[in-house]
Amino acid sequence: MQNFTFFAPTYFAFGKGEEAKAGELVKRFGGSKVLIHFGGGSVVKSGLLDRVKKSLDAMAIPYVELGGVMPNPRSGLVYQGIELCRKENIDFILAVGGGSTIDSAKAIAAGTVYDGDFWDFYQGKPVTKALPIGTILTIAAAGSEGSPDSVITHEDGMIKRGASGEAFRPKFSILNPELTQTLPAYQTSCGITDIIAHLYERYLTNTKDVEVTDRLIESLILTMKNEAPKVMANLNDYEARANIMWAGMVAHNNIVGVGRSQDWTSHQIEHELSALYDCAHGAGLAVTMPAVFTYNLQHDVMRFAQIAVRVWGCQMDFANPERTAKEGIEALRNFLISIGMPKNFEELGAKEEDIEKLAYTCCYGRGNEGGRIGGFVSLEQKDVEAIYKLMVF
Amino acid sequence: MQNFTFFAPTYFAFGKGEEAKAGELVKRFGGSKVLIHFGGGSVVKSGLLDRVKKSLDAMAIPYVELGGVMPNPRSGLVYQGIELCRKENIDFILAVGGGSTIDSAKAIAAGTVYDGDFWDFYQGKPVTKALPIGTILTIAAAGSEGSPDSVITHEDGMIKRGASGEAFRPKFSILNPELTQTLPAYQTSCGITDIIAHLYERYLTNTKDVEVTDRLIESLILTMKNEAPKVMANLNDYEARANIMWAGMVAHNNIVGVGRSQDWTSHQIEHELSALYDCAHGAGLAVTMPAVFTYNLQHDVMRFAQIAVRVWGCQMDFANPERTAKEGIEALRNFLISIGMPKNFEELGAKEEDIEKLAYTCCYGRGNEGGRIGGFVSLEQKDVEAIYKLMVF
Repeated sequence: MQNFTFFAPTYFAFGKGEEAKAGELVKRFGGSKVLIHFGGGSVVKSGLLDRVKKSLDAMAIPYVELGGVMPNPRSGLVYQGIELCRKENIDFILAVGGGSTIDSAKAIAAGTVYDGDFWDFYQGKPVTKALPIGTILTIAAAGSEGSPDSVITHEDGMIKRGASGEAFRPKFSILNPELTQTLPAYQTSCGITDIIAHLYERYLTNTKDVEVTDRLIESLILTMKNEAPKVMANLNDYEARANIMWAGMVAHNNIVGVGRSQDWTSHQIEHELSALYDCAHGAGLAVTMPAVFTYNLQHDVMRFAQIAVRVWGCQMDFANPERTAKEGIEALRNFLISIGMPKNFEELGAKEEDIEKLAYTCCYGRGNEGGRIGGFVSLEQKDVEAIYKLMVF
Repeated sequence: MQNFTFFAPTYFAFGKGEEAKAGELVKRFGGSKVLIHFGGGSVVKSGLLDRVKKSLDAMAIPYVELGGVMPNPRSGLVYQGIELCRKENIDFILAVGGGSTIDSAKAIAAGTVYDGDFWDFYQGKPVTKALPIGTILTIAAAGSEGSPDSVITHEDGMIKRGASGEAFRPKFSILNPELTQTLPAYQTSCGITDIIAHLYERYLTNTKDVEVTDRLIESLILTMKNEAPKVMANLNDYEARANIMWAGMVAHNNIVGVGRSQDWTSHQIEHELSALYDCAHGAGLAVTMPAVFTYNLQHDVMRFAQIAVRVWGCQMDFANPERTAKEGIEALRNFLISIGMPKNFEELGAKEEDIEKLAYTCCYGRGNEGGRIGGFVSLEQKDVEAIYKLMVF
């Protein structure tokens, strides 16, 4: 195991009706004037936004509102938010929505207290300072409610990039599974797929002897495997929603990923797809993961066999572990198909003729990465092209 | 799943040589004059105490020392520590040792800033204020390095009681598995048993549909099952020690125990044994757990069958789940015996003739509990007597 530090000081309030505590928690964590940041109509239509405002009103905390966050959140709204926060002397940002809204809130939080262009943080500048952030989560997926990460798409060139820093970690996050019960099946599945990807990207490590984190990661994928069919059968299943929601946080606050090298190849390859085609991140990952894993299989057959046996219930073929390893990847693909995810380029709306461009941007569009990606297997443009080609069938 | 809150803002520095950061971390978390609290000779002999002092010296942080913590830490040293902290104007306590040292440090931390008797907190008064605490852990066991809990034995009557409160949660904890490599096999096994108990006590719940925490708990017991034999075969196995050490923290900071009723019957029944006979807490738990689980088996056969299959690898007997459930308890008992733990009253040094007294103190010695214990099955004195009798064979 590698040396590591772990510090995750987010306060979680989990369960039915917990959004009523929003005002109390903003006050507890020092907010005196709030930007409420949100996406589109569902937060308004469901009455959630009104309940949040009421909770702030009850604590006599003034607020301004900024809606309009889109999936794959954009730089334009971030710039607008920064301007608004400065003008209104905002000292706390409350994100009401999913990962996109939270990521947008993080970008605004850092940009407001920074003299330069917020995009600097998404080009590698460390995030050391930001306004405090609270979240009220409406979809189990990105894990942004407990993570120090944010992903934004710059509209100049549609470049999708991530930034990270402890200042991005929310002070509090309210997780009420009821708020996810109104999500359509497709968005629910996209969220489940994203959670599974966060787990696989940590599982695919070159660090030896990491049984505790291996087992923890497996336990969370097993949870997805068990709970996803329940929620697909009944979108109102509170208990299944609750299990998925807590798993989604634990999957990404890194308590299960410490002390080991991680991968993030599938995320990097997927980001090009959602940036270019504006597809859902989870849907892109569903197509990307089996291709990446198939391409990287030979690098560590036993690791893929281990997850096949322990998570997907495959019988170990002791004479031919590779067969078991492949069976595990097929089991993942079939599981994702079973919850309504696309399986290939065609279903995703991606185009074969874009592959060279996608692979080039993936490897060279990140500034300083020398044309290579991957924490598990080091990949160059021709490898990434080959992986995209595996998605065309 | 029940509503819950979760907030675990301890900073962890994990790995080889991390104790060199002690001074830096004390400073970061606001300490300007430190009480170094420790146990006996091993911390001195190993040179750890000198390294810690050097690290404080390097940051020009003054300190005083208080050694002498014993297993099952006592009230006498706590009173002494409180007096010393007040006299020396200590504003930070650094515990160097295992759970006993950390628990003693927590008691001193709360007592120093409290006008009354610190024992009030161990009789139910909420802990709302304490000096900040840092820890350098030398045994993977109690989980006190990441928990808000402390257990102290009052020398007036040898009463062992727990207290809890967010002010007890360490500001930082340094976990270096190397520091545990010098531990003898017996103490190592006691620690492993304590960790397993923390997991079982959370597993035995009456809350339905808690797949995510069930799976997380199982993953940590599986880790113990896999890593304990490695460390028993080679006490110097750094990797096995590292896996056990992180699992021990995750097992008890409650991230795997949220949203569900918990049990703590085995701990309560064991506390009477270690209070009366001064046996190691882990050894007492090894004898207690199989007896408690056997007695409570009928309350939820399927829960015991589930852990038997998922963790202990038992084949499910679909015609007779009770047989599988019992097989799981026997597998646990045999595992504990295999790592050198005692199996019954005799090996523990406990006496059959004390059973009535033990059961009475367990049920009535806690002030206000109306003669009943147990979060999984409600037990009265006659039940507790029957459980102690199951340990005599």
